[in-house]
Amino acid sequence: MSTGEGFLHADRLFPADPSTRSIARGLYDAVSELPIVSPHGHTEPVWFAEDQPFTDAASLLVVPDHYLFRMLFSTGVSHDDLGVPRLDGGPVANGRDIWKTFATHYHRFRGTPSNLWVDHAMSVVLGCPEPLTAGNADELYQHINQQLARPEFRPRAFLDRFKIETIATTDGALDPLVHHRKLAGDGWIGRVRSTYRPDAVTDPETEGFADNLRLFGEMTGADTSQWDGMIEAHRIRRAEFRRYGATATDHGVPSAVTANLPLVEKQRLLDGAWTGTLTASEAELFRGQMLTEMAGLSAQDGMVMQIHAGVRRNSDAALFRSRGANKGADIPLRTNWVDGLQPLLDKYGHAPDLRIVVFTVDETTYARELAPMAGHWPCLMIGPPWWFHDSPHGIRRYLDQVVETAGFYNLAGFNDDTRALLSIPARHDVWRREVCGFLAGLVADHRLSRTDAEEICIYLSYTSAKQAYRFSS
Amino acid sequence: MSTGEGFLHADRLFPADPSTRSIARGLYDAVSELPIVSPHGHTEPVWFAEDQPFTDAASLLVVPDHYLFRMLFSTGVSHDDLGVPRLDGGPVANGRDIWKTFATHYHRFRGTPSNLWVDHAMSVVLGCPEPLTAGNADELYQHINQQLARPEFRPRAFLDRFKIETIATTDGALDPLVHHRKLAGDGWIGRVRSTYRPDAVTDPETEGFADNLRLFGEMTGADTSQWDGMIEAHRIRRAEFRRYGATATDHGVPSAVTANLPLVEKQRLLDGAWTGTLTASEAELFRGQMLTEMAGLSAQDGMVMQIHAGVRRNSDAALFRSRGANKGADIPLRTNWVDGLQPLLDKYGHAPDLRIVVFTVDETTYARELAPMAGHWPCLMIGPPWWFHDSPHGIRRYLDQVVETAGFYNLAGFNDDTRALLSIPARHDVWRREVCGFLAGLVADHRLSRTDAEEICIYLSYTSAKQAYRFSS
Amino acid sequence: MSTGEGFLHADRLFPADPSTRSIARGLYDAVSELPIVSPHGHTEPVWFAEDQPFTDAASLLVVPDHYLFRMLFSTGVSHDDLGVPRLDGGPVANGRDIWKTFATHYHRFRGTPSNLWVDHAMSVVLGCPEPLTAGNADELYQHINQQLARPEFRPRAFLDRFKIETIATTDGALDPLVHHRKLAGDGWIGRVRSTYRPDAVTDPETEGFADNLRLFGEMTGADTSQWDGMIEAHRIRRAEFRRYGATATDHGVPSAVTANLPLVEKQRLLDGAWTGTLTASEAELFRGQMLTEMAGLSAQDGMVMQIHAGVRRNSDAALFRSRGANKGADIPLRTNWVDGLQPLLDKYGHAPDLRIVVFTVDETTYARELAPMAGHWPCLMIGPPWWFHDSPHGIRRYLDQVVETAGFYNLAGFNDDTRALLSIPARHDVWRREVCGFLAGLVADHRLSRTDAEEICIYLSYTSAKQAYRFSS
Repeated sequence: MSTGEGFLHADRLFPADPSTRSIARGLYDAVSELPIVSPHGHTEPVWFAEDQPFTDAASLLVVPDHYLFRMLFSTGVSHDDLGVPRLDGGPVANGRDIWKTFATHYHRFRGTPSNLWVDHAMSVVLGCPEPLTAGNADELYQHINQQLARPEFRPRAFLDRFKIETIATTDGALDPLVHHRKLAGDGWIGRVRSTYRPDAVTDPETEGFADNLRLFGEMTGADTSQWDGMIEAHRIRRAEFRRYGATATDHGVPSAVTANLPLVEKQRLLDGAWTGTLTASEAELFRGQMLTEMAGLSAQDGMVMQIHAGVRRNSDAALFRSRGANKGADIPLRTNWVDGLQPLLDKYGHAPDLRIVVFTVDETTYARELAPMAGHWPCLMIGPPWWFHDSPHGIRRYLDQVVETAGFYNLAGFNDDTRALLSIPARHDVWRREVCGFLAGLVADHRLSRTDAEEICIYLSYTSAKQAYRFSS
Repeated sequence: MSTGEGFLHADRLFPADPSTRSIARGLYDAVSELPIVSPHGHTEPVWFAEDQPFTDAASLLVVPDHYLFRMLFSTGVSHDDLGVPRLDGGPVANGRDIWKTFATHYHRFRGTPSNLWVDHAMSVVLGCPEPLTAGNADELYQHINQQLARPEFRPRAFLDRFKIETIATTDGALDPLVHHRKLAGDGWIGRVRSTYRPDAVTDPETEGFADNLRLFGEMTGADTSQWDGMIEAHRIRRAEFRRYGATATDHGVPSAVTANLPLVEKQRLLDGAWTGTLTASEAELFRGQMLTEMAGLSAQDGMVMQIHAGVRRNSDAALFRSRGANKGADIPLRTNWVDGLQPLLDKYGHAPDLRIVVFTVDETTYARELAPMAGHWPCLMIGPPWWFHDSPHGIRRYLDQVVETAGFYNLAGFNDDTRALLSIPARHDVWRREVCGFLAGLVADHRLSRTDAEEICIYLSYTSAKQAYRFSS
Repeated sequence: MSTGEGFLHADRLFPADPSTRSIARGLYDAVSELPIVSPHGHTEPVWFAEDQPFTDAASLLVVPDHYLFRMLFSTGVSHDDLGVPRLDGGPVANGRDIWKTFATHYHRFRGTPSNLWVDHAMSVVLGCPEPLTAGNADELYQHINQQLARPEFRPRAFLDRFKIETIATTDGALDPLVHHRKLAGDGWIGRVRSTYRPDAVTDPETEGFADNLRLFGEMTGADTSQWDGMIEAHRIRRAEFRRYGATATDHGVPSAVTANLPLVEKQRLLDGAWTGTLTASEAELFRGQMLTEMAGLSAQDGMVMQIHAGVRRNSDAALFRSRGANKGADIPLRTNWVDGLQPLLDKYGHAPDLRIVVFTVDETTYARELAPMAGHWPCLMIGPPWWFHDSPHGIRRYLDQVVETAGFYNLAGFNDDTRALLSIPARHDVWRREVCGFLAGLVADHRLSRTDAEEICIYLSYTSAKQAYRFSS
């Protein structure tokens, strides 16, 4: 990207065959400087609203990144030593010690995407002169902290420096959106956008679900004890999110189940959700019905519906009790998109303005389910490789398995989906390099002309995400 | 193939590494001119029986090809504009307009096998001077229509020109086989063959199933109200199909379930099928029992049994109501071959003359189920990559995942399985090129000698299909 | 390996791209001469205890190797002709005829790992001058038999010659361990080790299960009619196995189901197991509870727990009746590790000394389940590709799918898992070559330095297995 490669090799990730590599390099030249469109992720809106400097390498790079501490935990490092906060407020390591621990075990990320992302952030973003080792840990810690204090490392300057044209945060349906209001006042909406994520009021297995529904009613003036009122509350809040640049909703669900029930049945489920008396399968049905309802609202208001299905959250109960959610113990589940989406598609599959972007961590569904489905239904697009599969080999498997059946034009481009702000340029760069590599393979195979490859490459690196998420250009 | 490459690159699809490519090219030289054996497909027998010229590029190339219109539909083109007929007889676009629409959106097939097939048909078969674009659409439309009027483009001449040694059509158990009778009179049986496809009388969820059974009885003189009579009707019709060159049967089923029930239970299912009172799971059991019965008949009469399992047909109910079946909304289902085939194999797995060729659209079963099963049971062979997976990457994944466990000699060679007559040479060519590429990789790896690779290459391109389908040479 | 390559090509299995191949070759130079650590396999302890010469090529190479006879059976060769013994004592072919049959059909192994293993054994181990053909079968048969008579082909000399530093046998919980006692007397424990495999007393669907439990009680003096006594019997026998070098246990189960039941429920299951009255799902629950119990014992005694899950054994009932188990009709089953292991992990997932190595034949679980799970839980490691997937392409798929999420340091190195003694050097060699090829790809991609690659290469070829299995160095 624009600020040079630092200690990274300019040809990294390109295919080894010299002529294919040369094609890939040429394609990359056409996309490496394109702006970044980040339509889905988990950065904190407060960063962009308040634009305060970051202060500490460890708390910025290690502590929020579950990719990092999960791997080290799996090989025997304690969460305390990695600074993962305890819910009981007990002490954990301080920044310098966390950083030292991280550096000492950094070799354990060899061969993983974390290695690419951290190296990129340290080299390209932070100007570190060499990769992290136990030996240079203290020195680099100091160097990074000094860098972070400089104006060009403030969040808004970061967006400028790495040409992040637009970035979406993900905010709960109950979020007061105070930071987005501040951003609006500063004329920053569009550059930063919200995304409507209503899981806390659509998943009856959420803790405090009845309280959430009550608050949801209070925020919107709708009667959330009645099914139609509850849907109306969504309609109201979706409109409000759109005022803060939101063009999309996001739905995290353990399965792809959807439903299409009569009103009396829906109300019965809602009543049970209020009283906390739903069985596990009723709760799944409730979530499934809510997906269908959200599709109905999207067909009306044009918000792009994202479905991230198939993860068992917090599978380590002891860890969840001691340190809470998003601590690296979320595990993919096999996902049945064909049966799951059938009720939703039966009802809304032909709605002209509906767009659904699906994300999976079950790669077996790429070629068997998602590509065939996206290759028929106009409303369906396939999101980029998600979570564990947002990696060089993961992207290769994805392109290998989706393109021949879904084509390039049913793909939604790239999402970085990260909480790790500094990894955003790295993640987009890996995607672009892998797309170039894949297309170079098709050119070398004489399946695609060099010119067509460049057009697709620009499309997948930039245009497709803007179009898929209906960002006005 | 024999008529030159036109605007296609001679090295297309070969591996990029120069030495591997050179090996692949050498192997391809040994097979590119071999005759085509097409043991399974969906061309129309009337074409070969009547041998009338085709007249229109759009109705020959676009309208019958669900690969083409499904992709364009998925990206926003209407079925009307693509000329997909409406069941209500309402108007759809005419040939020239269909062709223009197709050309305008042809770039959406980049990276897909359709792109390879259409380019091949236009270049090698039809002699178009360049790939289709919106700009040359009208000109090429006229060119193709003129070509089609020439004698060498009549169906029989087409078979000659592309060395199609034998081609099997697929015909329902209730088909009167009038075209095959004509072909027999012309001495063309052997060149063109029938295949026995009894789904309409083995799947009780078929519309009009009782009527079908009644007709089946009338055609054969057997009492299809009784289980044994119904089986006898199959025996009679299978014999009749064999008179028209059929060496194989074909069975399209949503799952791989088979059954092995006592007669009283079978009769109970048949009674329910007649009265339309079977539950969904009883219907599955009926189909499963029929697969076992068909295996039993194959063990007696030597007809090769093809099982195409695991597709949800017509998953878009609105489309099915408005335009009928085979409109691109058929979606793969996960398929359990291990549990599914167990009852059949328990009963007939060691029958000396039984041969079953299995086809899957669930690629996860290649390495986990089909290769291990075919690597043990003498009666089982693995069919080529099916449907969505009949593509360059699909073939690579197939060979990657089946060969090491099943070897080359449990594979049934290639099927084109197409309704698109002009794509037949292209499809066999893609298979041959990919086989050459795979084998070249083994030669480059020093796992296989060049000589052995050539022998296998000829086998997989030609001999294996003849042997697997028991065509006398 | 140390004795030269014979008729094998020195660069076999390395990537075709010249620069990548050159990196792979360099890496291989660093590991090709490392000792072999074989922590899991099925060689016969009597071989090493008695150290008698082998006498016959066919009975050593063909008859015990189900990879070989299953493939030939699947292509039409009879078990009798391959010398697979009949339980009724009926005659089967003699050594020379078996060998001749094998040679005649040896081309059917092209493209399979058996081809690599047999060629390696014949060339490198046995000094045959050329690959086996029908033409040289008699000559090579004689040559091999003469070789086997020489002192350096005795089992212990074989271990020396191929630098097999340590080899584990797999022995049932009821095994009297007489051969290991002899080995102990000879000071050979450590070089040869036992592994505790208690399936016969943990799987109530084993034939003669009650007799087994009774004998288990007699051997240990524990009251195996009571749950706690039965667990105590395991504790006692595990300690005894440790005296014979065992550092690991091994569990072959059809599914990954585990359980965590109250004592009263466990006793109820045990009572049913004694009386043979458990249903299939109760039997599964029993096995699942036993896995959890074994994990509890491992957490106490430090023995590494191996779980080999997901195979339907003896799926060909007729073959099982006529010739018994391990005859090539074992077929992989889809395996659900996420749900399956949850109860065990809930109970013992954080036990400090627990180590579980998991093996799967369901490759779809590599990226979706095993890598994410191993990338979180400190107790979990992923075993090498198992059974059908212990092959060049199988290893490529494995590394492709596990490394990015689990890293290299959650992998347990290599197991040969074989009954075919002479194939051990070949199997480790294939693993090392493929690891070199994979790492060379990462170096060529500039994801990994040459130095780091060499370190990982040594780790995966040698160190990791020693560490994973807690062999003192």
